[in-house]
Amino acid sequence: MFATVEERAVRGVTGVRKSYREVIDVSWGDPHRAGVKPLSFVRQVLAACLYPELMDGDKLMVDVKQRAQRLLGTCAGGSVGSYCATAGIPQILQSISQYIMRRDGGVPCHPENIYISPGSQWALTNILKVLVNSEASPRTGVLIPVPCHSTTIISLTTLGAVAVPYYLREERGWALEMEELQRALDSAKGVCNPVALYMINPGNPAGYVQSRKSIQEVIRFAAEKKLFLLADEVYQDCVYGKESEFVSYKRALAEIGAPLSDSVELASFHTASKGLMGECGLRTGYVELVNLDPAVMKHINNLFSTNSCPILGQIALDVMVNPPQPGDPSYPLYLKVRHFYLPASLAQNVRRVEEVINSFPDFSCQPLEGGAFAFPRVFLPPKAIERAKEAGLQPDTFYCLRLLEEAGVLFSPGTEYGQKEGTYHIRFCIMTPTDTMEEILRRLSAFHEQFMKEFS
Amino acid sequence: MFATVEERAVRGVTGVRKSYREVIDVSWGDPHRAGVKPLSFVRQVLAACLYPELMDGDKLMVDVKQRAQRLLGTCAGGSVGSYCATAGIPQILQSISQYIMRRDGGVPCHPENIYISPGSQWALTNILKVLVNSEASPRTGVLIPVPCHSTTIISLTTLGAVAVPYYLREERGWALEMEELQRALDSAKGVCNPVALYMINPGNPAGYVQSRKSIQEVIRFAAEKKLFLLADEVYQDCVYGKESEFVSYKRALAEIGAPLSDSVELASFHTASKGLMGECGLRTGYVELVNLDPAVMKHINNLFSTNSCPILGQIALDVMVNPPQPGDPSYPLYLKVRHFYLPASLAQNVRRVEEVINSFPDFSCQPLEGGAFAFPRVFLPPKAIERAKEAGLQPDTFYCLRLLEEAGVLFSPGTEYGQKEGTYHIRFCIMTPTDTMEEILRRLSAFHEQFMKEFS
Ligand SMILES: Cc1ncc(COP(=O)(O)O)c(C=O)c1O
Ligand SMILES: Cc1ncc(COP(=O)(O)O)c(C=O)c1O
Repeated sequence: MFATVEERAVRGVTGVRKSYREVIDVSWGDPHRAGVKPLSFVRQVLAACLYPELMDGDKLMVDVKQRAQRLLGTCAGGSVGSYCATAGIPQILQSISQYIMRRDGGVPCHPENIYISPGSQWALTNILKVLVNSEASPRTGVLIPVPCHSTTIISLTTLGAVAVPYYLREERGWALEMEELQRALDSAKGVCNPVALYMINPGNPAGYVQSRKSIQEVIRFAAEKKLFLLADEVYQDCVYGKESEFVSYKRALAEIGAPLSDSVELASFHTASKGLMGECGLRTGYVELVNLDPAVMKHINNLFSTNSCPILGQIALDVMVNPPQPGDPSYPLYLKVRHFYLPASLAQNVRRVEEVINSFPDFSCQPLEGGAFAFPRVFLPPKAIERAKEAGLQPDTFYCLRLLEEAGVLFSPGTEYGQKEGTYHIRFCIMTPTDTMEEILRRLSAFHEQFMKEFS
Repeated sequence: MFATVEERAVRGVTGVRKSYREVIDVSWGDPHRAGVKPLSFVRQVLAACLYPELMDGDKLMVDVKQRAQRLLGTCAGGSVGSYCATAGIPQILQSISQYIMRRDGGVPCHPENIYISPGSQWALTNILKVLVNSEASPRTGVLIPVPCHSTTIISLTTLGAVAVPYYLREERGWALEMEELQRALDSAKGVCNPVALYMINPGNPAGYVQSRKSIQEVIRFAAEKKLFLLADEVYQDCVYGKESEFVSYKRALAEIGAPLSDSVELASFHTASKGLMGECGLRTGYVELVNLDPAVMKHINNLFSTNSCPILGQIALDVMVNPPQPGDPSYPLYLKVRHFYLPASLAQNVRRVEEVINSFPDFSCQPLEGGAFAFPRVFLPPKAIERAKEAGLQPDTFYCLRLLEEAGVLFSPGTEYGQKEGTYHIRFCIMTPTDTMEEILRRLSAFHEQFMKEFS
């Protein structure tokens, strides 16, 4: 449906009222698309690596030059134009593993368990390939949350796996409840053979952050049921709920202690696309593997071996896990840009989204704690639902199409992520400049009022 | 064995004589690794796109700025940090299709048949996924040349296909002969079900360039046998044989005319890793598909849909297919850098390699016409073969290891690419600065003489 909504946007379908000047597209988790400025430290280091002559002048800070020089030194022939080892540049794997150890309060991390890849989604698909036997009967099952990042659903389906949904409890801030996990697992009986459990924390599309307690419950459940844990933790740097804290599955597992900490199999994903830098276009992420059987590791190694990954993305990963520190010449500017978005600006967006959306009786938005999106529920009137069905559309798709046509704002419908039968949602990226968010909310409010009136 | 040879290089295995100062690694097709300088126009455009502030000063030529500005305009939010459509940025697909049309003397090319991907190898693997049924019995076969680019062999094996070898005739400049293709096809009977024919033109590891006549024969053969043509044409810009000309499979197919030109299925691959720019680290290539069934195209579309590709690599592709033209401010510099390598510098390397290698009675190098490598045959003495076997090594691997240990030059052995039983080869990249090539030949000659004496 993406294509349809976008195509309509591009082609200017007849009947569009065009009271707006330009379409604001917040249907992706892509901050630059919505006007967020890139971090200059990242861009300067990348530009200097690409075109080392830039380091001759005095335009670039000394720490930018030092970083670029050090990273160029890790490239074959001193050029970002060379191939590298398929798992990634060894020194960058080392930086990542040190970052993970710091993040996890000292839990050991070994570079040989990390694979850099052209995007974290690619890494996830590769791991799924190992877990899913596409010809097995019964078919391989993977438990996935509802709602769920849509590309993961596509990856699973393409591989011939069965996606076994467990529903997050919206009314409780999209909590992951153990009885529901058990119900989901039971539902797979006779249908498929569940081998893995996929979680997204912080969430996408819903903006929850799992508590340490919840994570540990999930780990115990996985251990008992012998499920491989797939922890999609790409939003680990995007936590803004006042009471929220990011705890990695790896850390929680270590804190549980033996024998679980030595046996539960876990893959955790992160990416340069998310976090503060939001460099989606570089297409570079990584996976860390924990407690995997050496034979399985070998197989994974083969899968990752037919491609090496973009060098510039790896350089961005190095900056992501080692941003400028107090005292570094670039630190003041870095801090300014960083703080403009997080927490100041993003926190303001969060507050305004919750405020405006929840001011409507037929909208409801759970507290936004982390991730890149708001995923409010919209209570559509029966007449709107009827009209959508006549048009052969899902009701929330119908809503999003109308929003696009009448207000020039591109959201995506809950339908794309899965939602409880009879409920409807809309998803939009909240990582935008504050004035863009105000404009979005203004357009949405005006449209929504009109829409509800029309179908009341 | 790569790992072994390299590991030894890195770890400095005992017994190494170390008469050299540093290891020269020409085992990859990676010009920057061997010291070739990147094209500054490419790097300037990329740096300007990454860090647009660079365009404020007068450091960059106006055509660099114009190109960067135009390409930034094709990125969502004007940033190379945004996601793009999974097939690639539409305007860049358009540039590529226009390039292909010019290359092929006007044969039509449609952007919707092109998919940009994170490296051409990734595209090839994806197309193979569609062609190979990994659970079929008999298994799916793909005809591959011997010698063959080693990653393709790995891709095929990982997918569960049978690689059916057809041997190129070394004595005739690695010619592809029709009787041999027929023999290969016959050899598959009862073993597998051949569905596709893979060619590399210009060659890797052997440096041949196929003639138009040879290509048309292959196409007719494929048509008759209902084989899908996989044309690995990544070295299309690397042709230096005096009598040689690159003719694309697509063009040759069009020239044959209907009904073949409307029915033979073809995939052709190209990449920013090769050609003059040699930007392997950007990991971006593309495939053009010709005459594919719409249902198959849909399936391929799905496979390419779980990942978009690096934006910076796409920008490099735009420059690759639209280099500076006479009259452009950057043209003189571009021409200078370009000519330094091609034809002047590379042609000199080619001449020297042929000269030096063929001056030894126990070496034989076919004329080098295109591609990035020399692949001479080495006639190893029985005693060396014996010694290798004692060490549990292939004879040419043994030779390469000794070359590395004693002369600090890293080649790869013919064993990795396939070769006629009882023949031995070595492969090395010829895209190096001329002085590096002189040093390589000097070290190789001294080592070779010594080695032959030792085992005579
Ligand atoms: C939960 C989640 N996982 C993975 C990804 C993919 O990230 P990448 O760009 O690294 O492939 C996304 C992108 O939006 C995401 O939201
Ligand atoms: C014949 C051939 N095909 C494909 C490739 C892979 O190119 P890419 O870097 O685009 O994946 C190579 C790389 O050496 C090659 O030699």
